[in-house]
Amino acid sequence: MTATERLKRQMEFIREIDKLKNVFRQTLLMDGRRYENDAEHSWHIAVMAAVLAEYSNSRIDLAKVIRMQLIHDLVEIYAGDTFCYDEKAAADKDAREAAASSKIFSMLPADQCSEFMALWKEFEARMTAEARFAAALDRLQPLLHNYATSGAAWQKHGVTSDKVQERNRHISEGSETLWEYAESLIKDAVARGYLSPPEV
Amino acid sequence: MTATERLKRQMEFIREIDKLKNVFRQTLLMDGRRYENDAEHSWHIAVMAAVLAEYSNSRIDLAKVIRMQLIHDLVEIYAGDTFCYDEKAAADKDAREAAASSKIFSMLPADQCSEFMALWKEFEARMTAEARFAAALDRLQPLLHNYATSGAAWQKHGVTSDKVQERNRHISEGSETLWEYAESLIKDAVARGYLSPPEV
Repeated sequence: MTATERLKRQMEFIREIDKLKNVFRQTLLMDGRRYENDAEHSWHIAVMAAVLAEYSNSRIDLAKVIRMQLIHDLVEIYAGDTFCYDEKAAADKDAREAAASSKIFSMLPADQCSEFMALWKEFEARMTAEARFAAALDRLQPLLHNYATSGAAWQKHGVTSDKVQERNRHISEGSETLWEYAESLIKDAVARGYLSPPEV
Repeated sequence: MTATERLKRQMEFIREIDKLKNVFRQTLLMDGRRYENDAEHSWHIAVMAAVLAEYSNSRIDLAKVIRMQLIHDLVEIYAGDTFCYDEKAAADKDAREAAASSKIFSMLPADQCSEFMALWKEFEARMTAEARFAAALDRLQPLLHNYATSGAAWQKHGVTSDKVQERNRHISEGSETLWEYAESLIKDAVARGYLSPPEV
């Protein structure tokens, strides 16, 4: 590949990922005025990593955490956003996202395709300290948004507090401190009526 | 400051910066359907840094470039977006942004306030290799968007090609290769009628 072709492919990738700005999530912005998109969400959790790194359970390479977060949702350009409490959509999420990862990352020159694909797989697998911390913030951020909007997304989808606990518990694998904080938010959300307790 | 207070301040900062998602720019998304906001823009240039780092004129600490980019526009939460061809607004931009930087970064614990403030000042000053490269991408990205939207923002504001050249020339301080690419886009934009040549 010539240098010109290499740059051309990189620029095509950069243009293509603009579409992430139109992948909307179930989360409202904190002011409740509209849904958040994946590009904004990715930016937000990357800043959160820079601010909250000290709470990681293990020593982490912050730069790697941030690079992971920046690209972790690119697969959703083709696979769409799967609401984390949607059990039906979760069934084929992995297959849809694997196909999407090939499609988006193979736009890049081979060396960068491998690099980005490896980062994305590492994030998904949650086996390294960096992936665990990145994933913890990926879960904590929508929790903050749901709390700030008086539980809008929880109520819309009839999600109860036991599901929220269960779905977010892996925050503790990345950070015990942040999981403690998340648990206090969940408890407070129930007390304020933002989130319903489990049906008995 | 207790550990609890420290975390509380960090979380307040994380909530406050959600407002960046409502600071809209003059640039349209590549599909032309709506204006881009600062959070999306910050995400986009951070990914660009990871993809295009090899074109920096000097060796750079990529992690630092990305951290700079992630926070470079936070001042606009209070100071607003200044369109880069708006010479009147540019006059008091520095004063407005300096005040805004104190306001936003002092929400953080003192050590992080200093760290983020230093990063932001470094970006603004463009005296280090990292700041030059970060700033180059900050200029290149809207150029890509303007080209993709057939010059929408240029035409709306009556910006001519000499102004675009002049305003973006500092891309070359960060990357000669990317400036060469930008110049070819500008030339092509004139040829296609997306951008008007200077008035004679």
